Amino acid sequence: MTTSTSSPATVDNGVNVTALLDAREALEKAPAAAQFKWRATCQWLNGTHSRSTIGKYFGLGVEHSRDKTFAVEADHPKVFAAEDQAPTPVELVLSGLASCLTAGVAAVAQRRGIQLQSVKASLEADMDIQGILGIDDEVRNGFGAIRVHFDIRADASDDDIKSLVAQSQKRSAVFDIITNPTSVSVTVN
Amino acid sequence: MTTSTSSPATVDNGVNVTALLDAREALEKAPAAAQFKWRATCQWLNGTHSRSTIGKYFGLGVEHSRDKTFAVEADHPKVFAAEDQAPTPVELVLSGLASCLTAGVAAVAQRRGIQLQSVKASLEADMDIQGILGIDDEVRNGFGAIRVHFDIRADASDDDIKSLVAQSQKRSAVFDIITNPTSVSVTVN
Repeated sequence: MTTSTSSPATVDNGVNVTALLDAREALEKAPAAAQFKWRATCQWLNGTHSRSTIGKYFGLGVEHSRDKTFAVEADHPKVFAAEDQAPTPVELVLSGLASCLTAGVAAVAQRRGIQLQSVKASLEADMDIQGILGIDDEVRNGFGAIRVHFDIRADASDDDIKSLVAQSQKRSAVFDIITNPTSVSVTVN
Repeated sequence: MTTSTSSPATVDNGVNVTALLDAREALEKAPAAAQFKWRATCQWLNGTHSRSTIGKYFGLGVEHSRDKTFAVEADHPKVFAAEDQAPTPVELVLSGLASCLTAGVAAVAQRRGIQLQSVKASLEADMDIQGILGIDDEVRNGFGAIRVHFDIRADASDDDIKSLVAQSQKRSAVFDIITNPTSVSVTVN
């Protein structure tokens, strides 16, 4: 790693920072527009296999339709006597954390004039399945702990690279969702 | 909805409950085998677009390789000046919650001898993006609240259906991850 000699103008990580800064300025004056609603609809297929579809969302005061609808499948693995047709739900959560932090690294690097060459995040999460199996009520159902390791190549010093990740973490929606409690209400029929 | 007349033997939701009960019995005697490690590796593609790969995991005391590796992409939407090539990271988390609760409904229904016809979960999460944009430090980055609504058709009474969802929620890994804090450590290079 070398100290950056790039100017912000020549750096291109594929993030439109000007538009994001403009959005921030606009939303400072119109906080109601900052209220978003994200959605997913999940259809049971068979056994533990399901397909979630993701399309519309609400934000900037209006409903947004995408050009396409995204599908995300989930299943349980063979060691749970399931068919392993898709990632487990907890692995989807890990992917959400990984992608949120990675997108943040790219955005912060762009803002700071740091050209990225490559970013790879490796995540591992501990889970004691005595929780979900109902063996021991003292054991939580979810993860005991999550470890994220970033391997980043960029035109920047090691300290500047560490600082990119720290800033991404500070503003990450999924990092916050996992490290802090969120209220979930569940209704039926 | 009518009261169930099916016996467990004739109900088929595609979940192998006998294997799960056997696993529970085996793990009660060998809690070390219940320690799992779930993993994801995320590669930055461009801008806020990334691809996570999900394959190996550890559990029952050994490493497990799957027949295939799963890929889960994420991106930011056009209103964030991104290319909207995949769901947002927070929508992946919603999919993880939806699929975890849905798989639980199928497993609990099988255990209780309730034949499912259809299960659909609709999720909506509030997010004030003043948090991630750094406009207001009092606003959290993640979701303000999540609402899950299940529409379930099954050979069971309304009360029995409500009870299915309650039990699934009680043993859901992702529900726990979202509603309770989890420690996340992040290291770089």
